[in-house]
Amino acid sequence: MSLTQHLSTSISFSSSSFLSSSGFTFRNRDVSLPSENFGICRCVATPQEEKTTYKTKVSRNANMAKLQAGYLFPEIARKRNAHLQKYPDSKVISLGIGDTTEPIPEVITSAMAKRSQALSTLEGYSGYGAEQGEKPLRAAIASTFYGDLGIEEDDIFVSDGAKCDISRLQVLFGSEVTIAVQDPSYPAYVDSSVIIGQTGFYEKDAEKYGKIEYMRCNPENGFFPDLPKVSRADIILFCSPNNPTGSAATREQLTRLVQFAKEKGSIIVYDSAYAMYITDDKPRSIFEIPGAKEVALETASFSKYAGFTGVRLGWTVIPKELLFSDGFPVAKDFNRIVCTCFNGASNVVQAGGLACLSPEGRSAMQKVVGFYKENADIIMDTFNSLGFNVYGGRNAPYVWVHFPGLSSWDVFSEILEKTHVVTTPGSGFGPGGEGFIRVSAFGHRDNVLEACRRFKQLYK
Amino acid sequence: MSLTQHLSTSISFSSSSFLSSSGFTFRNRDVSLPSENFGICRCVATPQEEKTTYKTKVSRNANMAKLQAGYLFPEIARKRNAHLQKYPDSKVISLGIGDTTEPIPEVITSAMAKRSQALSTLEGYSGYGAEQGEKPLRAAIASTFYGDLGIEEDDIFVSDGAKCDISRLQVLFGSEVTIAVQDPSYPAYVDSSVIIGQTGFYEKDAEKYGKIEYMRCNPENGFFPDLPKVSRADIILFCSPNNPTGSAATREQLTRLVQFAKEKGSIIVYDSAYAMYITDDKPRSIFEIPGAKEVALETASFSKYAGFTGVRLGWTVIPKELLFSDGFPVAKDFNRIVCTCFNGASNVVQAGGLACLSPEGRSAMQKVVGFYKENADIIMDTFNSLGFNVYGGRNAPYVWVHFPGLSSWDVFSEILEKTHVVTTPGSGFGPGGEGFIRVSAFGHRDNVLEACRRFKQLYK
Repeated sequence: MSLTQHLSTSISFSSSSFLSSSGFTFRNRDVSLPSENFGICRCVATPQEEKTTYKTKVSRNANMAKLQAGYLFPEIARKRNAHLQKYPDSKVISLGIGDTTEPIPEVITSAMAKRSQALSTLEGYSGYGAEQGEKPLRAAIASTFYGDLGIEEDDIFVSDGAKCDISRLQVLFGSEVTIAVQDPSYPAYVDSSVIIGQTGFYEKDAEKYGKIEYMRCNPENGFFPDLPKVSRADIILFCSPNNPTGSAATREQLTRLVQFAKEKGSIIVYDSAYAMYITDDKPRSIFEIPGAKEVALETASFSKYAGFTGVRLGWTVIPKELLFSDGFPVAKDFNRIVCTCFNGASNVVQAGGLACLSPEGRSAMQKVVGFYKENADIIMDTFNSLGFNVYGGRNAPYVWVHFPGLSSWDVFSEILEKTHVVTTPGSGFGPGGEGFIRVSAFGHRDNVLEACRRFKQLYK
Repeated sequence: MSLTQHLSTSISFSSSSFLSSSGFTFRNRDVSLPSENFGICRCVATPQEEKTTYKTKVSRNANMAKLQAGYLFPEIARKRNAHLQKYPDSKVISLGIGDTTEPIPEVITSAMAKRSQALSTLEGYSGYGAEQGEKPLRAAIASTFYGDLGIEEDDIFVSDGAKCDISRLQVLFGSEVTIAVQDPSYPAYVDSSVIIGQTGFYEKDAEKYGKIEYMRCNPENGFFPDLPKVSRADIILFCSPNNPTGSAATREQLTRLVQFAKEKGSIIVYDSAYAMYITDDKPRSIFEIPGAKEVALETASFSKYAGFTGVRLGWTVIPKELLFSDGFPVAKDFNRIVCTCFNGASNVVQAGGLACLSPEGRSAMQKVVGFYKENADIIMDTFNSLGFNVYGGRNAPYVWVHFPGLSSWDVFSEILEKTHVVTTPGSGFGPGGEGFIRVSAFGHRDNVLEACRRFKQLYK
């Protein structure tokens, strides 16, 4: 197969690679696109094959149909592919998707290997585990991340990742609730909300779905929503440190957020997947804010701490104090969702999670996080030296670069065309991201340095 | 902590352990029940603590509220616990939950260990994988289980287990479809349907949820629904070999099922999690039936083949030919669900799955399956020799014993009281299971033999 052929049938990356209108899209470079005979209509106008395509009488879920076909990451993949076809010898560097690149510390992988091997022995074998996670891991998460915050072991639900938990939370809340999201934000919040039926249709001009409250976050408001202008929503999805802006909310801001939720009777779904990247004294958990347990739950992940993006491990904290309007505990319903729709994270992987939280594991994770933060420093310094306004980066592995007045996609295309570096156009995270580019700090050091050299050439 | 104390705060098992009305319930013996201060109301009538419990203004999902509190497995766990308190020295044997007990073959655990270790190297590290699964595993599943059936690698979606996929399928189909289930059947079908909003309320007298079509399966109809009497449903959930009856549908029966679905325009969700237990020439996949690709998808699992109940790996096959009424391919929407609500099975676990499908792995899995089937033979012989009508067992790891005219719960209680063996009352799988007991063939050989000795004493 020639390189061109290969490129035309494979796509190299995407974060939550959704379908494009032209067919499947895939994240992994090993995954081929389905052959072109995949299609809605199989009718072929040759006499031998003349037959009607059979259709069931099952209506397609109307919520699925609301989802936009032209999703961010497939679109990027298409553009990257087109670029590679145009410049087959270019050394493309991806600082697009937030995918970890550095090996997992040995203390962690050894624990997984050991647990795997033990499963072949009578003493070491275990079948179904608790859907909520193994007791020692739940206890270690509670003490490591929530030491004196009053979060207990049985408030922790271990999962196969934050993205999966966000979806399970949407199933838990159901179609009748309203949601608010930061704008820009991680696309899975909005898409899972659309799928479960909480939203109206996509409004093309506004680039928004109906019935979602988009809370604008930009340099003018310090990337924190202007709460007095925010309409009440049942569920407030809030990510800090933020993906994509890299901004971490201050204690004072989060206190206001909790106060806002309490006044409105909302539930905050706090995504702290990047909390270990916080350098300064900003809160790493929403539960550092007094009263938060009555209005917030928190979802988190090992993905960006230990390089577990492919290993899959996360957790969600739901305090006993968090109650629906009828007084029913949210945790009880989530427990039921976890038991009905999930069967626990892999036992092998949970052994890895436990090793992450040993003293050696914690120190090893800190090193991994520190490495990516150095990358972020390099990227920030580069854009700063070129005179750009640069946000994020300090408390997050994402650098958010401002190109005021320009289209994110135009900037993305120019960077790709002239430097062969893949970034992410900010508008892909919501209309509030227009005019920005997200540069990911996940990458090998030499790639980051080389990308920065190219940025300097382009913008010198 | 005394034994009695320990027993009163821990529960030993349950399959899809849902909440009981009294609080959380857990499957794993290592998991403590939450302390008694978990509750809806924290009000305490002491002056210092006098404060109103804060409630959010978010309404509890009405579908969650429809779920019945007194679920099968917690109820069994409660009875087992009460039994252990009454007879603290009894040697309780569990043939209740279908949980694997035998070690995973070394060829499989080694592959997982190797993949784990590789993740700590630059060459062996990988981050996000394709949400749909790694290409070699998808290819191996297609060729191993669907060799000449025209199922292709890209029709396979690798997952963290069949239970999880069933739930994702419910999200895909949404709240507007109607479903039909075998009665009795695996409880997660009905519960996931309730959660997503496809059903009416639970009707206590009928022991059924409104809007679900329960297809009675009993000895009279050969455990195959009387299709001419079945009302049309959009989605037909069909499990063969069946959990709990252990009955596998014949080629002729499945041909009628496919024909029925085609006439009604329904989609069959075919659960083949126990297909490797089929001894005779009954179909192992719905796709062995001509035309099935236009009306069926299939979900499957490594859990009961390789002892992966705690490792977590399964897959779902969605043929390109399966279309909604508007011609939109079901696979395309499922792909989007997988990408939005899931992030792929663990890479370490997928390495184990691939090893399962190597020649050595396949032969090792056959041995594990063969071992449990010998257990089933022992259990069947026992009940046959005692004059019971016994079903299942031959093509499945479950033996379905008839106690005509008796209450399943009464039989369950008598067996527990007099033999210290935990079984599962058939009525827990739906009203059609009344008068039956499910005896699981998962267990160490000496436990199975000892349980059978006790059965013989009880019923001699």
